[in-house]
Amino acid sequence: MKLGELGEDRLLGQLLPNLLSGRTIAIGPGDDCAVVERPNRGRLLVLKTDCVVEGVHFLQGRKAFNVGWKAMMRPLSDFAATSAVPQFALITLMAPEQTKVAWVKQLYRGLGRAANRFGVSIVGGETSSTPGPIAISTSVAGFVEKDCWVSRRGGKAGDDLFVTGRLGGALKRKHLQFIPRITESRWLTKNFSIHAMMDLSDGLGADLPRLARASKVGFKVQMENLPLTRGARISDAISEGEDYELLFAISPRDRSRLQQRWAKKFPDLPLTRIGSLSQLSTKDNQLLSRGYVHFQQPG
Amino acid sequence: MKLGELGEDRLLGQLLPNLLSGRTIAIGPGDDCAVVERPNRGRLLVLKTDCVVEGVHFLQGRKAFNVGWKAMMRPLSDFAATSAVPQFALITLMAPEQTKVAWVKQLYRGLGRAANRFGVSIVGGETSSTPGPIAISTSVAGFVEKDCWVSRRGGKAGDDLFVTGRLGGALKRKHLQFIPRITESRWLTKNFSIHAMMDLSDGLGADLPRLARASKVGFKVQMENLPLTRGARISDAISEGEDYELLFAISPRDRSRLQQRWAKKFPDLPLTRIGSLSQLSTKDNQLLSRGYVHFQQPG
Repeated sequence: MKLGELGEDRLLGQLLPNLLSGRTIAIGPGDDCAVVERPNRGRLLVLKTDCVVEGVHFLQGRKAFNVGWKAMMRPLSDFAATSAVPQFALITLMAPEQTKVAWVKQLYRGLGRAANRFGVSIVGGETSSTPGPIAISTSVAGFVEKDCWVSRRGGKAGDDLFVTGRLGGALKRKHLQFIPRITESRWLTKNFSIHAMMDLSDGLGADLPRLARASKVGFKVQMENLPLTRGARISDAISEGEDYELLFAISPRDRSRLQQRWAKKFPDLPLTRIGSLSQLSTKDNQLLSRGYVHFQQPG
Repeated sequence: MKLGELGEDRLLGQLLPNLLSGRTIAIGPGDDCAVVERPNRGRLLVLKTDCVVEGVHFLQGRKAFNVGWKAMMRPLSDFAATSAVPQFALITLMAPEQTKVAWVKQLYRGLGRAANRFGVSIVGGETSSTPGPIAISTSVAGFVEKDCWVSRRGGKAGDDLFVTGRLGGALKRKHLQFIPRITESRWLTKNFSIHAMMDLSDGLGADLPRLARASKVGFKVQMENLPLTRGARISDAISEGEDYELLFAISPRDRSRLQQRWAKKFPDLPLTRIGSLSQLSTKDNQLLSRGYVHFQQPG
């Protein structure tokens, strides 16, 4: 059966009962707005939206479950970057009328499974027909404690730069199956003073300069230290993107304590010092080859 | 200049300084997540996402300012339906690389002007290239006091049904320029016990049955009472959609007080009793011709 034959109301009627609904939700999917309990005292509200577009973030013919997984995990990776706890998600699905209903159901299975992985409730959304490619926009709301919150802005000259996991080669498989580093990020900010953090989605070559610019510092990277995925080259680690690992800046005074405690807490996930932040000086900054930048033509 | 020549970072760099930033915002556009102050005590968090797609919600060649206005006002109309106060918005823009940067700037002017009309701050967003039509997804967060909040679910048999404004003919002009009925909705719930409410976006024929279903009641509409836009027919009022007026259910005991106080408070906006809710009984329900339903082929 195709979407055009089923209709929006019946589609939502079939999808909604399967979505999560926690106790903090006054009213969830199916009404005009989602209405949920506000965050508690001492917490900030955190909001993020992101999208996946057929032909850009996934190729036609990819499994719908994996596409749904990625559509949910991309904004959750930004929650990891902020050390925030995601709670509520809204989905906007734009799909042509000839899209198979079975495909959409698998998409929502992937969205739901990914949300469930981090205790997130899908509380609403919207569907629209489109003459173009399938696109899914996911918006997530959650919270961060005032003393855990970290942005891209606090990096200081002299800070160590660390990345989690391995970089490069994500386009083969990982980009549809990755797990955002929320657990790791929450642990980091609870146990250390993390000066600045972000997630690597466009590649180190595009993302690190953003962190440095936001922190008003420069940077140096030891290319030979980059933790590479098996089979990936240094240039892949810099330019490919879709790694969804954490990049963060921390005082070198914390280096050995961080490395020891990390190895105990997350023995299966490498943590690698890739370089450091430096005084702002344009000629010091390395020219990293570009990561993946939307709308940017190859330079 | 085209988007593909400018690049995402420079695009955002040009757009962000013009967006609103209130005092409750810890960090706004440009970082991984938006982080804002949580709602106060006694208030619920309200979330809504919606989208506009070229060729579906607006035709190619429409003024970008008006498209931006509509992309912001659609979810705000859902806030009106919930009697909620919108505070923060996130924008996801999906656009082909050959899109003119000037068009995108006008789009954001429209988004910003519409947000400003209701004191909403645009705190973040995402841009993505797409091979398909331009699509804009807008997510809004805000609050509603527990005693003001209204959903589609509380309608009772015997309730009067009212609509604000005039119906039909919105596709000519109004759908790109409408003003969500937030002020009116907030006034209604502060001064009356509104049992159920929604905004009319798909047409009375599609939307009223949704309110009735959610409230588990039937309905009767006096067709001859429908308040028509000049030049519109009854069938336009039922089927065209895009009216963005309020439909609500209220006890008939409140009828005369409501009509008197409304006429004083909003002298330029008609308020019309169009029918009533009834006991649930399939054969009582009128068959309204369908409103605009996404994915539904004409029956």
